[in-house]
Amino acid sequence: MSNIKVLPLLEPESGPESVAPCCPPLTERPFTAEEAERTARMFKALGDPVRLRLFSLVASHEGGEACVCDISDVGVSQPTVSHHLKKLKEAGLLTSERRGTWVYYRVEPSVLASMGRLLASP
Amino acid sequence: MSNIKVLPLLEPESGPESVAPCCPPLTERPFTAEEAERTARMFKALGDPVRLRLFSLVASHEGGEACVCDISDVGVSQPTVSHHLKKLKEAGLLTSERRGTWVYYRVEPSVLASMGRLLASP
Repeated sequence: MSNIKVLPLLEPESGPESVAPCCPPLTERPFTAEEAERTARMFKALGDPVRLRLFSLVASHEGGEACVCDISDVGVSQPTVSHHLKKLKEAGLLTSERRGTWVYYRVEPSVLASMGRLLASP
Repeated sequence: MSNIKVLPLLEPESGPESVAPCCPPLTERPFTAEEAERTARMFKALGDPVRLRLFSLVASHEGGEACVCDISDVGVSQPTVSHHLKKLKEAGLLTSERRGTWVYYRVEPSVLASMGRLLASP
């Protein structure tokens, strides 16, 4: 019998960590395929008008956080609002915390700053 | 007969001007539906990994411009490259100029700066 143990390969996490910003400004050098994959996910999340409104609503809300209960007026149903907030969370742009009945969403400031850096002019 | 003349309504231009950045930082106040529509178009254009690679390739290319003839190595055919460059142009992120056989693409610096401002932290 061999003493060699095969360690299981660790799958990359599928949480916000895996889409955390990684990359130099877009104007610095061509992105690699992997950099582009990671970064495109965040841009794609903001590439929908309803999600972008929800994102700015959370980002500008009193105390820096909002729950579905704070959101009206975006022209979509509450389940649709929840769906889009979840997408923004999956893209690493929002974090969430359940308190009592509601889930509160907050903008992840480091991600916002990194996206700003990506777009910095040379 | 009346002297009143009805002037034709001007349609908004469908060129890059119509998607020019318009809006305050995302963290300042909730976006209106119209602001979100305009801004989401730019994010959506960068929300595809191949387009993002092409964009960074053009943005970081010598002289600040590139043509399809400068682009290889992104794993898609030349017609697909052309298609994506056109999409980036339609989103107002690139400008183009034909010189001889080739169309040269250049990053629109004002748009990049404005997108950076959108993502500015409070």
